[in-house]
Amino acid sequence: MKTVAIYGVGLIGGSFALALRRSGYTGQILGVSSSGTIAEAVRLGVVDRGAEADEAAYLADLIYLAQPIREILKTIEWLSGRLKPGALVTDVGSTKVEIMDVATRVLGANSFLGGHPMAGKELRGVGAAEAGLFEGRTYFLCVRDQAVLDHPVAEQLVDHLENFGARPVLLEPAEHDRLVSLTSHLPQMASTALASCLSKVLEPNSARNGAGPGFGDMTRLAQSSYELWADILFTNVNSIDRALALYIAELQEIRAALGHTDVGATFERAANFSGLVRKPRP
Amino acid sequence: MKTVAIYGVGLIGGSFALALRRSGYTGQILGVSSSGTIAEAVRLGVVDRGAEADEAAYLADLIYLAQPIREILKTIEWLSGRLKPGALVTDVGSTKVEIMDVATRVLGANSFLGGHPMAGKELRGVGAAEAGLFEGRTYFLCVRDQAVLDHPVAEQLVDHLENFGARPVLLEPAEHDRLVSLTSHLPQMASTALASCLSKVLEPNSARNGAGPGFGDMTRLAQSSYELWADILFTNVNSIDRALALYIAELQEIRAALGHTDVGATFERAANFSGLVRKPRP
Repeated sequence: MKTVAIYGVGLIGGSFALALRRSGYTGQILGVSSSGTIAEAVRLGVVDRGAEADEAAYLADLIYLAQPIREILKTIEWLSGRLKPGALVTDVGSTKVEIMDVATRVLGANSFLGGHPMAGKELRGVGAAEAGLFEGRTYFLCVRDQAVLDHPVAEQLVDHLENFGARPVLLEPAEHDRLVSLTSHLPQMASTALASCLSKVLEPNSARNGAGPGFGDMTRLAQSSYELWADILFTNVNSIDRALALYIAELQEIRAALGHTDVGATFERAANFSGLVRKPRP
Repeated sequence: MKTVAIYGVGLIGGSFALALRRSGYTGQILGVSSSGTIAEAVRLGVVDRGAEADEAAYLADLIYLAQPIREILKTIEWLSGRLKPGALVTDVGSTKVEIMDVATRVLGANSFLGGHPMAGKELRGVGAAEAGLFEGRTYFLCVRDQAVLDHPVAEQLVDHLENFGARPVLLEPAEHDRLVSLTSHLPQMASTALASCLSKVLEPNSARNGAGPGFGDMTRLAQSSYELWADILFTNVNSIDRALALYIAELQEIRAALGHTDVGATFERAANFSGLVRKPRP
């Protein structure tokens, strides 16, 4: 692939560009973003130059959509009939079913490889981009037709992801959305709900007096921006609904046991599971 | 005060002894614990020597109860009629109403100063004790009669706590139990419930694939030992019940809004509150 076009040069798009360069890619990297972002991205050596969406689509062998989910959906619709022959489109959206539906209809199952890197950090924007962001992180890939994995650009992309130190994991789109509703979306809602309900009954100063070391852990995610989460919540309704129902039922069970029934088994199950998932990978 | 006796020489009791020494206390420090713990505590220079509970009660000007809550309650009952004249008893129990009730009845409001240091770490036992454990942490004090604050030993204790760099905060026992049910007990239950419900629907390996950076934060507390929490849950039933009800209602509200109503206001309220509480103290 001679040209890669990154639509949305923020933390993820910028980190992908830097990682691609470090992985040995010598072709051209174009950025499609606001002019201020492009100026910063060029200054930081993240992209070679900016391009209009049209020119980038015309030139690119790989189109990397690193925008918010609703923007990704719009760009996919817009790309209809504009792809260079043999080009591949991929994305980084945190939910996959709706994106795969639209991409399959608009671009065809053999021109689109869904992606979702489980990477991020508190800072946002191209200024926070780093070549090592994907290292050691799962990078979910979703397809509607296995044949797209034999697409020459897809093969190169997967090689690069492995060079990044990322762990590509192929998953059915619906199974992806169910999994992240439990491991990512539910923890976010649990933290937001905790901070929100406490804000209704406590003054920040007295909360600070009563906050032990665990309080900080449980309310860090609550500082996430709704801008990112609105799209996730609106494109994964059913799975998040089921995840919340499961969590509420667990809390109700604990509440019902309070004061008369031992919940040692719940603590033990939680501690074991948490220990297994948090254990460093071999 | 010439003699301090620490009942339960673990992380908190041991840290108190080390901090007391560093704060300039030159009297005797006795430890009441199992013989293995005492051997380690003496070897580490945490206490001067071990003592039987009887001898320690007979000699001590300050009795520091750093046991689990149910043990504290038993020791208070046992101390009836055994205190040296002019001695003061204090404790470190994470709930205060029940302990204050028993202590006031058994020892009198003027011989007992309730305490609760908001300090801890993942490691337990005297081997993990450190003189700086209370630094920068709230140290709640509870009384049933303000007069106990003029007790000469109480005045010395508070001076030492300030030397530790701890922040003594006087609070009504019921208000203490309500506050920590929200800032400490609810976050613990939220984390335990999250890990427990996920363990019912996910394999640890697939959970690990889907775990972003926030997952670790939200399940760290779930690794806490039930041994410590059983006593807290059984001695703060009403407050924890109300805290859980508040949290469940918030989650239900979010769930009801999913897919059609914007929850931006909830995210904003949560982010603001979390930011204020987590902000470093001036």
